[in-house]
Amino acid sequence: MASSELIKKLNETIENVPDFPIPGIQFKDISPIFLNPKLYEDVIAELAAFSKGKIDAVCGIESRGYLFGIAIAVALEVPFILIRKQGKLPPPVISEKYDLEYGSAEIETREGQIKKGQRILIHDDLLATGGTTEAAAKLIEKQGATVSQFSFLIGLKDLKGEEKLKRFGAEVYHILEY
Amino acid sequence: MASSELIKKLNETIENVPDFPIPGIQFKDISPIFLNPKLYEDVIAELAAFSKGKIDAVCGIESRGYLFGIAIAVALEVPFILIRKQGKLPPPVISEKYDLEYGSAEIETREGQIKKGQRILIHDDLLATGGTTEAAAKLIEKQGATVSQFSFLIGLKDLKGEEKLKRFGAEVYHILEY
Repeated sequence: MASSELIKKLNETIENVPDFPIPGIQFKDISPIFLNPKLYEDVIAELAAFSKGKIDAVCGIESRGYLFGIAIAVALEVPFILIRKQGKLPPPVISEKYDLEYGSAEIETREGQIKKGQRILIHDDLLATGGTTEAAAKLIEKQGATVSQFSFLIGLKDLKGEEKLKRFGAEVYHILEY
Repeated sequence: MASSELIKKLNETIENVPDFPIPGIQFKDISPIFLNPKLYEDVIAELAAFSKGKIDAVCGIESRGYLFGIAIAVALEVPFILIRKQGKLPPPVISEKYDLEYGSAEIETREGQIKKGQRILIHDDLLATGGTTEAAAKLIEKQGATVSQFSFLIGLKDLKGEEKLKRFGAEVYHILEY
């Protein structure tokens, strides 16, 4: 559970941008967090504390999931595995396809980087509808590893992403909820 | 100057993948570095030592430039500014267009995150032809800041990216050269 000071400071730092990327959406711009290395380190300490002793590797989702994910892995001294968009990682890769509002997308990890039986944390900056995160979890399970935890900086309650993740039986944590 | 041990370890870790993304190209896959948090930290120490005391902020180029860039900024206790592909950052943004082999692309920073007079390190994982890096440097200069340094994990000598960056009068460093 994050301190009320950390939550207050994050709420003062994250910027609300109305009508981006489309009218009616309130975009949460987290980029000002990276201007403040002390605040960034406090976020990492919080996310690392959630996962300490409970995971064997961190999977981060491209590209904002890399910004906190790599530091969580380093803090816990465990491997960090890149989940990338289709076509970015060289072969051999393991892929998972998922539906978007219009069309579909694919995410990938390099074959062999996730080991059978590992307890995995999936990290991303934001949990919205949970479509990409769900695909990431399937991608990990089909490699014989276990999704033990999901962590996010922000969870958007109304979009019900957390419900979509329930069937994986993993802990879910976000520092902020809107 | 990186130690010969660090260079040896990186060369053993980075994977050469022939004919990716197109026939004739030798792709350097750096993703195995992130599986080894100790090696990652040695890379960060090396890149941070190059920039220590010489910069006021780090700009990282999406998305692999984030993986080392954020940690360099945190190690030096300076702001980290995201350079993103067009349309990812909410308005207001500052943009710079550049040519690709076929067509063009655009990169952006959020307005106000780069301050006039700051000494900036531009970081990316790889220097190839230097097209994106050159656009990043122009993007910074047009905001009244100075590009003081460029750093990369890898420089590809034959593609002459370093020559393209000469006119900015900044220091250029890469740990590995192929």
